[in-house]
Amino acid sequence: MNFTIRTATVEDCKDIRRMMSELAEYLNITDQITITQKDLKQDGFSKNPLFHAIIAEVPEQHKTKDGHTKIGFSMYFYIYSWKGQTVFMEDLYVMPEFRGKGIGKALISKVAQLGRDAGCTQLKFTVLNWDKKALDFYLNQDSTDLTSDLGYHYMCCHGDAFQMMADKSSA
Amino acid sequence: MNFTIRTATVEDCKDIRRMMSELAEYLNITDQITITQKDLKQDGFSKNPLFHAIIAEVPEQHKTKDGHTKIGFSMYFYIYSWKGQTVFMEDLYVMPEFRGKGIGKALISKVAQLGRDAGCTQLKFTVLNWDKKALDFYLNQDSTDLTSDLGYHYMCCHGDAFQMMADKSSA
Repeated sequence: MNFTIRTATVEDCKDIRRMMSELAEYLNITDQITITQKDLKQDGFSKNPLFHAIIAEVPEQHKTKDGHTKIGFSMYFYIYSWKGQTVFMEDLYVMPEFRGKGIGKALISKVAQLGRDAGCTQLKFTVLNWDKKALDFYLNQDSTDLTSDLGYHYMCCHGDAFQMMADKSSA
Repeated sequence: MNFTIRTATVEDCKDIRRMMSELAEYLNITDQITITQKDLKQDGFSKNPLFHAIIAEVPEQHKTKDGHTKIGFSMYFYIYSWKGQTVFMEDLYVMPEFRGKGIGKALISKVAQLGRDAGCTQLKFTVLNWDKKALDFYLNQDSTDLTSDLGYHYMCCHGDAFQMMADKSSA
């Protein structure tokens, strides 16, 4: 199937938000999405964007029954590590009916390429351990599981705990 | 013990690099450090810094036998998530002889406060699961272990695998 991978524009925010909801539903973490389409427009497409995104698109004749031609996306940004600048892929999503056609692989390769162009030597991301298909997909591309191999745990402080932690700072 | 927490300047890069080595040695991952003091100067203290850092400092009378007064640091930067802008703490380190005095807590609180000031509602970071002291420290502050609780694995694609992934992108 023909598809194209391209940089997202502000006009894609509606579809990005839709696909984020679809992804969150699949991952059973819908409660973790609080950002709106408006937030995405402001945060990703203003002067100093907080994230970047790419879109996978199919021609009109392959559109979904709901009329969608934007059928996959990846959100990424740059972080820093002991190996210098690093590209972090926050989301990778392809709509179920378009899986198994190399679109996910094309998206992650594009993120890696853009990262390399920006001077990165590595790509980091997270995956849920029960999502065996995703885990196999990544391991098939020789990604390293830092959690299984080295014991890295991904941690978060949010809500009241975050507020209390910030309050404790005297300065 | 008196100590101060302050924003790092370019003059701190030598001590940051020294403490990164000490931390890497403790974590048994010295092979993962490839950045130099010069990289830190360039990446953290030029016009568009790739990271931020804060320093914990003690008065001269409490300096180490090697003459160090900069005895702890945290490196952090901003990422993005489904909850919007998020502060990510890449490193948190206090020299062994200065632990148990609230310096680590003061550093993480400062990072949370700076993150909140920048509009974040959460702090993310990683910890190694065998580092029980660090894990307990974070859990005592009501941090959530996304790996234990939700199954998040932290993944990395680097070296030849990263180059091959980037090469596969056609555009």
